[in-house]
Amino acid sequence: MTDDETRFALPKGTRDVMPERMILKNRLLDKLRATFEKYGFNPLETPALQRTDVLSLKYAGGAEILKETFRLEDQGGRKLGLRYDLTVPLSRLVAESRSLPKPFKRYELGVVWRDGPLKAGRYREFYQCDVDVVGPESMVADAEFIAITEDIFEQLGLDIVIHVNNRKLLSGIMELAGVPSEKTSSTILAVDKLLKIGKEGVEKELAGKGIDKKAVKKLMDLLATKENGAKLLSKLEKEVENPLAQEGIRELKQLFSYIGEFGVKEKNVFFEASLARGLEYYTGTVFEAFLKDKSRISSSLAGGGRFDKMIGAFAGTGDKVPAVGISFGLETIMDALAKDESQKTVVRVLVIPIGALEYALQVASTLRKAGINTDIDLMGRGLSKNLTFASNASIHYAAIVGEREAKEGCVMLKDLKSGKQEKVIASKLIALLKER
Amino acid sequence: MTDDETRFALPKGTRDVMPERMILKNRLLDKLRATFEKYGFNPLETPALQRTDVLSLKYAGGAEILKETFRLEDQGGRKLGLRYDLTVPLSRLVAESRSLPKPFKRYELGVVWRDGPLKAGRYREFYQCDVDVVGPESMVADAEFIAITEDIFEQLGLDIVIHVNNRKLLSGIMELAGVPSEKTSSTILAVDKLLKIGKEGVEKELAGKGIDKKAVKKLMDLLATKENGAKLLSKLEKEVENPLAQEGIRELKQLFSYIGEFGVKEKNVFFEASLARGLEYYTGTVFEAFLKDKSRISSSLAGGGRFDKMIGAFAGTGDKVPAVGISFGLETIMDALAKDESQKTVVRVLVIPIGALEYALQVASTLRKAGINTDIDLMGRGLSKNLTFASNASIHYAAIVGEREAKEGCVMLKDLKSGKQEKVIASKLIALLKER
Repeated sequence: MTDDETRFALPKGTRDVMPERMILKNRLLDKLRATFEKYGFNPLETPALQRTDVLSLKYAGGAEILKETFRLEDQGGRKLGLRYDLTVPLSRLVAESRSLPKPFKRYELGVVWRDGPLKAGRYREFYQCDVDVVGPESMVADAEFIAITEDIFEQLGLDIVIHVNNRKLLSGIMELAGVPSEKTSSTILAVDKLLKIGKEGVEKELAGKGIDKKAVKKLMDLLATKENGAKLLSKLEKEVENPLAQEGIRELKQLFSYIGEFGVKEKNVFFEASLARGLEYYTGTVFEAFLKDKSRISSSLAGGGRFDKMIGAFAGTGDKVPAVGISFGLETIMDALAKDESQKTVVRVLVIPIGALEYALQVASTLRKAGINTDIDLMGRGLSKNLTFASNASIHYAAIVGEREAKEGCVMLKDLKSGKQEKVIASKLIALLKER
Repeated sequence: MTDDETRFALPKGTRDVMPERMILKNRLLDKLRATFEKYGFNPLETPALQRTDVLSLKYAGGAEILKETFRLEDQGGRKLGLRYDLTVPLSRLVAESRSLPKPFKRYELGVVWRDGPLKAGRYREFYQCDVDVVGPESMVADAEFIAITEDIFEQLGLDIVIHVNNRKLLSGIMELAGVPSEKTSSTILAVDKLLKIGKEGVEKELAGKGIDKKAVKKLMDLLATKENGAKLLSKLEKEVENPLAQEGIRELKQLFSYIGEFGVKEKNVFFEASLARGLEYYTGTVFEAFLKDKSRISSSLAGGGRFDKMIGAFAGTGDKVPAVGISFGLETIMDALAKDESQKTVVRVLVIPIGALEYALQVASTLRKAGINTDIDLMGRGLSKNLTFASNASIHYAAIVGEREAKEGCVMLKDLKSGKQEKVIASKLIALLKER
C-alpha cells in the first residue's frame, strides 16, 4: 500500500464517475444506443462473470490479455474470471445457441476489466460499446459499420476520418514485396505502426526482424501511396496473382461502392494499406476512426473488422462463421468532445421556499409533472445560501416562493445566468420554462 | 460440475439477457432515469471493484452479506471484492469527499453480485436501481421518495400500494407492549414478517424468543390496527411517553402531510406499523411498495428508508449524517409488467432487395437518416425467406425493392401484421411510417 492509498481508497485503476462526467457519459451512451438501433441492431447483455475455460479459449483474447484477467471462484469452487471484452461472451453465446436466427445483429454497452499496468487514461474497469453482426459474408455488412461510424461522429460534431484496409490484401502486399511467408504475421504487426512511429521506425523494426533491405524498400514504397488508395488498388490488382489478395481487393472495391450508396462522404474514408489492427483474429476488412485533427487526440475513437473464424473455434467445429463488428472507445470519445459540451447538473430549477413550504411543494410537484427537472430546498436554508448553492451547482433557474407568492399563485423566477428576476403566474411557468 | 454444465456454460446464477427482455429492461431503465432526474437527482457511477476493507466495514452490509461476497485480488495482491450493493460505495464516496456540497442527490443504476444460494428468480449477478440523498433531516426528503415511487409505477401502469413506517415509532410500540429492551431488535425483525407469515406465525416466533404472552398479545393488538393508521398514531401519541417514539410519530405526521402536498394519492399510501425492513441500519422512515394484487407478485417492488448513521461510521467520526434512499427491484418490476408489453425487436422495417441492391441501400439509408429503425437483408436471401425471417423476428414492415421500384423511385411496402401490401413513393415513405 502506498501513501495515497488509505484503507477506504478506491482500488487502483478504478474511479467514481461524478455527475458532470456521468451526464456526458449518459448522453453519449444514449446516442450510441439510438444509432445502433436505427441500423437494426438489438440490445443484448452478457454476464460480467464468465468461466475461465471460456476466457482462455484458444481463439479468444489470447495470452497477453489472460495475464490481465481478474480471476475468482464461486462458492462451488468453479473457476471464473471477469470478462475482458464483449466479443468473447458474444462468441460463446452464438456458439452455444445453434438455433439463433441469422443474421444476429446485436449491440452491448458494458463494463469490462483488465488488471494491466496503469498509465494516464488507462483504467482497470472501463466501458466497451460493441456492435456486431453474425452471419453475413456480404460486404454490405462491413459497409454498414462504416456508415454507423460516420453517422455517430457527425451527430457528435466530431470531424473524423475512417481508415479502411483488408487483411487478405495486406498478405498480398507482403508477398508482392517479397516478405517470406513465415514472417508475414510479425511484419503486418510492425507495418500497423506506420502512422504512429513513422517510416523510419518501421524500417528499423523490420530490419531487426531480419527482413532484407530490398523487401523493406518495396514494402515502404507500396505503403507510401496512401494518399491515392485507388491507384494502389489497381496496381495491386494487376500485379498480385495471389488469390487471397485478389479477394481482398474485390472486397475493398465492393465495400467502397456500398458505402457510397449508403451516402457516406468520400472525403471521410481512406484506404490505408498499412492498417492491420494489432489483434490476430481479423480475417478481412479492418477499419479505424481518428480525429482529423490528430494533434488533439491521436488514438483511434473506434475500430473493428471482420473475424470469420472466432465463433467456429468456440463451437468446436472450426467452421467459418462470418462476423463483423466495431467497438467504440467511450473514454476517448468523451475526451475528444469539447469542454463546453459539459453540463454540471440535470437540474433546471431549484424551488426555494421562504416560509411557504406547502405551496413550494405544490410548485415543485407541478413542474415535475410537466417533465421539468426540478429540485427543492431540503435543508431549510435562507434565500442567499440557496442562491449560492444553485449557482455553484450550475442550476439555471431559482423559483422563489414566499407567503405573498403563495397568496397570488405565482413565483419569483430568477435566471441565475443573467441575474434577471421576474414574477411569473404559476399557470404560465411551465410554458415559459419549456420554451426557453 | 453437474451434467447441465458444459465447459462453455455460463457461471451458475448468471444469464445472457436476450434482446426481447433487454428491450424491456432498457425501457424501464430509461423511465427510472428520467424520473429520478425530474426529481433533481444526478447520475453517479461507482466501481464494481471495492476494497474488502470497505465492503466489510462494521456499518456496511453486515456478516450475512459478506459470506456472499465474491473476493479477488489485483496484481499488487490488494484484497478486493465485487460490490454487493450500491449504498456502501455511495457511503464510501461521501465519507471520503468532505467538501461535497450538501444535499448530495444521486442515482445509480448498476450491477451488483452476491454469491448466495440459488432459488427461482434469484441471480448472483443482478441490477440495483438506487436513488439517495445525503444531507437533509427534513421529512420533505423522505416524502420525495414516496412521490417518486408513486410517479414511476403510475407511468408503468402498475397499481401499487406503499407501506410506510418509522423505526423510532416501532421501538415505541415495543415499549408500549412491554417487550424488554434487550429483545427489541429481534422482536422488530419477527414483527416485520407479519404480512408474510401471518399473525400466528409471528406469535409462534415471538414465543420462541421468550417474549411473554401478555406482551405478545398487546403487540399484536396494536399492530392489527393497520387499516386505520391515523387512529393508531393518535393513540400512540397519547399513550407512549418514550421521546424517541414521539419523534417517530411527529415525523410520520409530517411525512403524510408533505406527500399530500406533493399530490400523492391518499389511497396509495398506508401506515403499516409492522413494517421494519430487515436491515439493521435504518434509523427512521421505512417504506416498501407492493402490487395491490399480491396474488400476482407478493415481494416488494421497491423499498427504502432513512439511514442517518451509516456515513458517519464510514467517515470514522460516528457523526450523524442524514441520508434517505430507495432501491427499485428491476427484475421484480419486469416480472410484474404485463406480457403484452413485450417487444421482440427494435427494428420496424426490413428492406428486401430483389436484385436492386444499390437502390435498396439508398432506401435503407434514407429511412435511417429519418430516425426509423431499419434493417436490410445482408444474407442475399430470396423474397419468401426474407419475409419469413422478418415475420419471425416480429418486424412490422417489409420494404421490397426490385428493378421496377428502383426505376419508379418507390417501394412495395408490406405490413407483416395485416398482410396488406401497397406501392409507396419513396418521398412519402417516411411520413407514412412516422404517422403509423
